[in-house]
Amino acid sequence: MRGIVVRNIPRSPPSVCADFPGLGVATVHESMGRQGLALPVLRPIYTGASIAGNAVTVLIPPGDNWMIHVAIEMCRQGDVLVVASESPCTDGALGELLATSLRAAGVVGAVLDVGCRDVRALQDMQFPVWCRAISARGTVKASLGSVNVPIVCAGMIVSPGDLIVADDDGVACVPYAKVQETGQAAAQRKTREDVSREQMTEKKLSLDRLGMRPKLAAAGLRYVDNLADVMDQSEK
Amino acid sequence: MRGIVVRNIPRSPPSVCADFPGLGVATVHESMGRQGLALPVLRPIYTGASIAGNAVTVLIPPGDNWMIHVAIEMCRQGDVLVVASESPCTDGALGELLATSLRAAGVVGAVLDVGCRDVRALQDMQFPVWCRAISARGTVKASLGSVNVPIVCAGMIVSPGDLIVADDDGVACVPYAKVQETGQAAAQRKTREDVSREQMTEKKLSLDRLGMRPKLAAAGLRYVDNLADVMDQSEK
Amino acid sequence: MRGIVVRNIPRSPPSVCADFPGLGVATVHESMGRQGLALPVLRPIYTGASIAGNAVTVLIPPGDNWMIHVAIEMCRQGDVLVVASESPCTDGALGELLATSLRAAGVVGAVLDVGCRDVRALQDMQFPVWCRAISARGTVKASLGSVNVPIVCAGMIVSPGDLIVADDDGVACVPYAKVQETGQAAAQRKTREDVSREQMTEKKLSLDRLGMRPKLAAAGLRYVDNLADVMDQSEK
Amino acid sequence: MRGIVVRNIPRSPPSVCADFPGLGVATVHESMGRQGLALPVLRPIYTGASIAGNAVTVLIPPGDNWMIHVAIEMCRQGDVLVVASESPCTDGALGELLATSLRAAGVVGAVLDVGCRDVRALQDMQFPVWCRAISARGTVKASLGSVNVPIVCAGMIVSPGDLIVADDDGVACVPYAKVQETGQAAAQRKTREDVSREQMTEKKLSLDRLGMRPKLAAAGLRYVDNLADVMDQSEK
Amino acid sequence: MRGIVVRNIPRSPPSVCADFPGLGVATVHESMGRQGLALPVLRPIYTGASIAGNAVTVLIPPGDNWMIHVAIEMCRQGDVLVVASESPCTDGALGELLATSLRAAGVVGAVLDVGCRDVRALQDMQFPVWCRAISARGTVKASLGSVNVPIVCAGMIVSPGDLIVADDDGVACVPYAKVQETGQAAAQRKTREDVSREQMTEKKLSLDRLGMRPKLAAAGLRYVDNLADVMDQSEK
Amino acid sequence: MRGIVVRNIPRSPPSVCADFPGLGVATVHESMGRQGLALPVLRPIYTGASIAGNAVTVLIPPGDNWMIHVAIEMCRQGDVLVVASESPCTDGALGELLATSLRAAGVVGAVLDVGCRDVRALQDMQFPVWCRAISARGTVKASLGSVNVPIVCAGMIVSPGDLIVADDDGVACVPYAKVQETGQAAAQRKTREDVSREQMTEKKLSLDRLGMRPKLAAAGLRYVDNLADVMDQSEK
Repeated sequence: MRGIVVRNIPRSPPSVCADFPGLGVATVHESMGRQGLALPVLRPIYTGASIAGNAVTVLIPPGDNWMIHVAIEMCRQGDVLVVASESPCTDGALGELLATSLRAAGVVGAVLDVGCRDVRALQDMQFPVWCRAISARGTVKASLGSVNVPIVCAGMIVSPGDLIVADDDGVACVPYAKVQETGQAAAQRKTREDVSREQMTEKKLSLDRLGMRPKLAAAGLRYVDNLADVMDQSEK
Repeated sequence: MRGIVVRNIPRSPPSVCADFPGLGVATVHESMGRQGLALPVLRPIYTGASIAGNAVTVLIPPGDNWMIHVAIEMCRQGDVLVVASESPCTDGALGELLATSLRAAGVVGAVLDVGCRDVRALQDMQFPVWCRAISARGTVKASLGSVNVPIVCAGMIVSPGDLIVADDDGVACVPYAKVQETGQAAAQRKTREDVSREQMTEKKLSLDRLGMRPKLAAAGLRYVDNLADVMDQSEK
Repeated sequence: MRGIVVRNIPRSPPSVCADFPGLGVATVHESMGRQGLALPVLRPIYTGASIAGNAVTVLIPPGDNWMIHVAIEMCRQGDVLVVASESPCTDGALGELLATSLRAAGVVGAVLDVGCRDVRALQDMQFPVWCRAISARGTVKASLGSVNVPIVCAGMIVSPGDLIVADDDGVACVPYAKVQETGQAAAQRKTREDVSREQMTEKKLSLDRLGMRPKLAAAGLRYVDNLADVMDQSEK
Repeated sequence: MRGIVVRNIPRSPPSVCADFPGLGVATVHESMGRQGLALPVLRPIYTGASIAGNAVTVLIPPGDNWMIHVAIEMCRQGDVLVVASESPCTDGALGELLATSLRAAGVVGAVLDVGCRDVRALQDMQFPVWCRAISARGTVKASLGSVNVPIVCAGMIVSPGDLIVADDDGVACVPYAKVQETGQAAAQRKTREDVSREQMTEKKLSLDRLGMRPKLAAAGLRYVDNLADVMDQSEK
Repeated sequence: MRGIVVRNIPRSPPSVCADFPGLGVATVHESMGRQGLALPVLRPIYTGASIAGNAVTVLIPPGDNWMIHVAIEMCRQGDVLVVASESPCTDGALGELLATSLRAAGVVGAVLDVGCRDVRALQDMQFPVWCRAISARGTVKASLGSVNVPIVCAGMIVSPGDLIVADDDGVACVPYAKVQETGQAAAQRKTREDVSREQMTEKKLSLDRLGMRPKLAAAGLRYVDNLADVMDQSEK
Repeated sequence: MRGIVVRNIPRSPPSVCADFPGLGVATVHESMGRQGLALPVLRPIYTGASIAGNAVTVLIPPGDNWMIHVAIEMCRQGDVLVVASESPCTDGALGELLATSLRAAGVVGAVLDVGCRDVRALQDMQFPVWCRAISARGTVKASLGSVNVPIVCAGMIVSPGDLIVADDDGVACVPYAKVQETGQAAAQRKTREDVSREQMTEKKLSLDRLGMRPKLAAAGLRYVDNLADVMDQSEK
């Protein structure tokens, strides 16, 4: 689908989105059965940001950011811009000017499977971006792509209106229809992790806490006193 | 050309160089018609530095930094050392000692298409380096390269005396003969961007500001209300 | 060797380990004859940390961190956890919970030839990790690997009990039997470098300090006044 | 979705599939509006094969091919096995034995976003595989994935029953509901290309055939006689 | 250890080596408990070769093949030359001339964690090489490395005298002391695979042959009739 | 320089070009002092081709092959098309149709720092291409680049009219003004190599032929009988 802009997308309410930054990408991703994670090639342009918002998706041709200009008009308060390229590209498709425009529209951050530029200015204005590369190289405005169609961004499927969660660990995507249940599952998981952390601080081993010892023994794990017991001379 | 050291190179005066850090790599690169940019594999060892200076170029064999020692004698106040390797290499060809020597010669920073080491010390002394890798691995001093000959550094052609501009967005190279005109073009571009930024803050869309709507329509862009309008069931 | 846990490993005393962070990875690596360095793909999750400690080694299957749970029980005060995967993997095999447990056991940091997650929390608790990737992706606990056997971590051979030194420049490994002599050699090297640095600050060129000029001449280095002297028109 | 096997999937009839190998991946992909192409990291293990078939999809954990064993039972005559990993992996998840089993089930080839092994034997039995890596490394059978759920394979979305087309140029995926119209569009495109080829053989330039000259002029293209006319001395 | 040449190394007899090419890298590697495999970055310069021989190891500085010249004198009939670089390097460290010399010494092939050149001539003379890159770039003869010391080649530990097995699937290394037992284990494994292949040709599923069904059920695998049964509308 | 087409370029006569394929890329590159080689990321789409011809250069925006259409009109008998992209790109910018047109114009092959498609057809028509990737993905015809200006192609500087030499080892570029002298130097080098090869076949070691032994001794090379002589127990 090229040359299409979809006006209406589903959006989770701000009250729901607000819970996710505190849960974190790792916990959210685990709560979805270890799914919906972007490849680790996407990195934040500065550390410490943690956001969640509804995805406005953009598909661009390589080296062409025309559709990002088109997409801004579709953005609402609390949205996250998610950009994929039709083929691998590291050009700086988004910089300070577009970020200013996105912020004016209420967008809370951007996820780019391409490059980003003006990163110093973006950090100064605290507009967080996760991207594949930092590159000063500019783009043309010559060919169409699409806005608010399903895309693959760094190996992650994103449909318009899905919830994007991003922090220093990376970027996750929660399907719109699973936002509520994922939020609840993640909150419960977080509570369990708080208990685990406390026990771990008290030097309780997960081997004991989680009953791993019999399983390890069944799998054939063998404890020996010294390396020499299992290596013959030639292997050393 | 191997085994050559060129003593005299053209240099832009300090007053001209001084304008460039404020303009930024992205703006400078755009002002040259989107040319003269290093590949985004070159990254700064710490963020926040922004420099411009005349290139002293060094071509080294892989894993050998002998010619950097030779190059220092050719450096003057305000220069930038630019190092390329004859073949791909990530070894740490420059560290604290060479940086101390470069600083003593007035060099304001270095661009290495190889590795850099002692990065903590370099940050402490605020000597900025853009490089392909951070690597503690040392190099030998056994084979000749050249100093002040044209080189290709991360895909960017650099002739001795060209103006190097580097900041958090990457590294650009302005040919010596184009420094003046590029500086002026970049300054004008920056002024235009300041106006754009203001308009964007006021939520004026580039679609309207730049008259994009008729061009998008001519290219065939189609707005629909809902994704379902363009996707049949099977595609969802 | 799979499915083996070795209980006893050699360990250098804390007093010996304590000298290494001050020497730095680059100096230590040079003092071993430019050996024992991990590939530069391993990067710290935050800058500024500098550690040294005895290696507890872990070999894991890709996407499976079960053996890290097993390894924690083998760790002692001052150890460094070193993890290799049987095949290339970027999954986040270690996060805040395991780090909490490792810290409780006295471990001073971790080196992972896989991914790391919860990096914000790890920075907050100042538990330094050097890793191949930052990834929120979790791992299973299903298959055996080994603990305290010799491993290859990012191209670097590590035997249990070897001394791991890590800082912003990367990660080095000093064989257990060479720790003492390497520490002494590195300290001497550092003293020499202090002298060099001072001379370099005073603009003494290494060409003169190290007597390089006759060697360069013998190798055929040629100084010319201008580039035009060595390039014919066609090459420019 | 993990731990799910879907029994029934849509399938295009053999008569429809049979047209696609002759059309080629490039033409098919162009006919879909330049969509549905896998990243070029997928390469055939031997050249010259050209296949099309209905996708049976498999999602595996990294380093674990258990679900491929499960998937074989779901395969029918004319199918193509498409495997994605939950995280990046190059292990050899498919070799001669599984290929023998797949062939017995009527499968015409496999597309793996992981590694392949026994490539000599696979070539001998003419079972074509497109994969990310060739690796002898084996996998475990310990953790669940899924069969016949939508997956992302090398950046390409594949739903079970979609038509996979693969040849020396790479791999494309035609959504099940678009197979008929894509086949027709591709056939027409191919006919047009045959005409173009003939004209090109007769030295008719596309500049003239496709009326590009006025567009190039409008875009500002400028013809000059010599390079010296546009480069000043310094740039040469 | 730099600057060392070891004259005497252990060697397995020709009669033992001769069994391994027929077993194949994948089977040999599996028989060692999935160990001793080089990373899949090493690829053969032409397909179809399958060799096994005793390792003569060479450690070279990047871009310097002097030690390969030294190593040839240490080679005997049936040896395999294995080259590692002190840091990542793709230069063509071995070409037709060295291959001619190696063949004259009885060497049956080479494994290079660097580049190879003259690949057409090497194929013509049927001297097989597995390497990281094909590159015409030459190397210097200026700095020492070592011959017949333990090295890490593409992530694989190789000690002099270990048995190297290489074919289209990659490269494996069998420790000298394990050659006999590995050969026997691999031969048994191969026999088992022959049986499996036959059963698979007869459409016997591994699910049944290997009794996987109860294990899959215990792990929670769920069969459903249609994708719609497990996906709600929003996920499609 | 964008939007420029240069009509007249220098060209070496066919009689001069004809000598180079027989010399080979490795020998030519060595004869230029190990310069002028493309990075090894460029690979032939099929093996066995060996060409030399005058460069017609093309600079394209990423994902846009419009300028290749423009370039064909500038090509003459014996030329080689050399394409660089303004930023990294793997799209298939050249396929069967353009190759047909290039062949009709007398072009003997193409070097692309982007992707190539229709590789089966190109092999059938024996039109050799060296490229960064094989990709079915098509390109647009929307933005200008330039024809016959100096470009950087895979790290190699190419001016229009330079001689391109390409074979299975990669791609080299001989500056126009150096073609004659390079051809002579390469021919002499080849003769020397023929002598060397003969001597090597007769088991004459380069250590003796080239008088390396005293230099190795001076550099500190030490021969020992056994590994144990230089390794203490702990290192094994």
